[in-house]
Amino acid sequence: MDISLSGHMQDGSHRLTQRVYYEDTDFSGFVYHARYLHFFERGRTDYIRLLGVSQGQLHAQTDPADAVAFVVRRMEIDFRSPARMDDVLTIVTTPAEVRGARMLLSQAITRDDQVLAAAEVTVAVINGFGRARRLPDALMQRFLGAGEAREPEGEAN
Amino acid sequence: MDISLSGHMQDGSHRLTQRVYYEDTDFSGFVYHARYLHFFERGRTDYIRLLGVSQGQLHAQTDPADAVAFVVRRMEIDFRSPARMDDVLTIVTTPAEVRGARMLLSQAITRDDQVLAAAEVTVAVINGFGRARRLPDALMQRFLGAGEAREPEGEAN
Amino acid sequence: MDISLSGHMQDGSHRLTQRVYYEDTDFSGFVYHARYLHFFERGRTDYIRLLGVSQGQLHAQTDPADAVAFVVRRMEIDFRSPARMDDVLTIVTTPAEVRGARMLLSQAITRDDQVLAAAEVTVAVINGFGRARRLPDALMQRFLGAGEAREPEGEAN
Amino acid sequence: MDISLSGHMQDGSHRLTQRVYYEDTDFSGFVYHARYLHFFERGRTDYIRLLGVSQGQLHAQTDPADAVAFVVRRMEIDFRSPARMDDVLTIVTTPAEVRGARMLLSQAITRDDQVLAAAEVTVAVINGFGRARRLPDALMQRFLGAGEAREPEGEAN
Repeated sequence: MDISLSGHMQDGSHRLTQRVYYEDTDFSGFVYHARYLHFFERGRTDYIRLLGVSQGQLHAQTDPADAVAFVVRRMEIDFRSPARMDDVLTIVTTPAEVRGARMLLSQAITRDDQVLAAAEVTVAVINGFGRARRLPDALMQRFLGAGEAREPEGEAN
Repeated sequence: MDISLSGHMQDGSHRLTQRVYYEDTDFSGFVYHARYLHFFERGRTDYIRLLGVSQGQLHAQTDPADAVAFVVRRMEIDFRSPARMDDVLTIVTTPAEVRGARMLLSQAITRDDQVLAAAEVTVAVINGFGRARRLPDALMQRFLGAGEAREPEGEAN
Repeated sequence: MDISLSGHMQDGSHRLTQRVYYEDTDFSGFVYHARYLHFFERGRTDYIRLLGVSQGQLHAQTDPADAVAFVVRRMEIDFRSPARMDDVLTIVTTPAEVRGARMLLSQAITRDDQVLAAAEVTVAVINGFGRARRLPDALMQRFLGAGEAREPEGEAN
Repeated sequence: MDISLSGHMQDGSHRLTQRVYYEDTDFSGFVYHARYLHFFERGRTDYIRLLGVSQGQLHAQTDPADAVAFVVRRMEIDFRSPARMDDVLTIVTTPAEVRGARMLLSQAITRDDQVLAAAEVTVAVINGFGRARRLPDALMQRFLGAGEAREPEGEAN
């Protein structure tokens, strides 16, 4: 099964394929509940990567005032049905709203089109001093028109 | 600094002291957001332990119909302020409501009485077949009168 | 960048491509050392998957005497150079020796052909009772002739 | 059961008590092998803390040339017997040798005096530029006479 390492955009949503490994499970036999947040975060990171920015680059700005970091402020998560070892999951990330220094995203973890977990995520945009900042205009444009996502510049991933 | 390994009850809430280690942090310099769910889960597990039951024992019932397992169904989490390497955190777990096969818990992670993260957690009670089941009466009594929590029987922890 | 979800065989070694995410890093700015063991384990799991078996299926045998599980007994790990957020890593797994109830594997985590971490791993083969058992002949044949690895039966991953 | 949050020194070794939680286990029913490295790391961090230094403080030196960080270069780990959910473990850390920019430590994870996992760990001492540096004399003295370990200054943990 071939996949795109950083996922792809489809109908305005980002879709990322991930495997469940040993590390994700606990002794109940299912995926440990906090691991779904890892999958959600991988989805958000690769969604932002496809919009043209890598988190590592954003953090590494030399002037902290210019740096852009994303911090999760709030999550509402419904754990509907458990995932298991070896499952192939799709993490679906859909931008719901972008306002100044705040983004709302809807996320789902699915297996064969069944939603196993769903989350509403509020992400704050901060600079290198930890203060709220507006999303740079170029980045905001890409969020609003997420359908036209593109590969990060100067990177072949 | 001496602590009780499984925490202690105080004013109807369970309080557990935990240290932040390398494993809890990420390259932003703060605690990785999903790790707060680990701290919350440690708090719930030790709270239930002080009520007289260990999760391991509950799972190990020979008749699956008698087994009692707790599964997180929903979490609303506010990430207010970041924790850092070496921080000493207190996880505060307060039972909010117990109804048949469902428990609501309020949890907070604090540092020097500042709330860093707060969560409303809905936990389902299931048996070994994965079906909803009532909490055993003895266990329900202890939840409702959590102030009188006691050490697990036959265990010196 | 398109990859094969379960990796692929090349010159007798299994190669799996994985991304470094937030969860893998710690506050030093680099990948947390224990996370390399996660990457190594993903490599071993997908290598065995390409040999025709999934760990989940092996565990789920109805007769515990027939079950086959792999348990890590010993690891020697050299951490040579740190990985960072956003890195694309290749986990290379090479079977070194199979003897009765014991397998030796050489593993490396590479980035652009630079070895970041290398490990010699001893894996024991046990049954569902936790006792040492020989690798089933069919599986042993595949290990010894790993070049001819094939997709797991009845699975499209 | 009361414990010291940061462990204590006994006969030249540091001993830290830790509980096994859900997060530490995998679907095999036992502790996930990479988690032992987390326990080992907690032991090393608290051992160094009792010698008078916190990792967070060491990293936070304003002049990178003065910073002291510890990086794991090599581990040989024997996984002897599995730990389970709810287990109470003791992590035993014994300094074996300190030479310039390199420390060797012997570590064990025990349950009721049974060794479940043992590790020989080589730790490099580096500065904030990532270059090898000698351990500061004061710190080296404490390692060599580890029996007289003391609480970190200005901290009540």
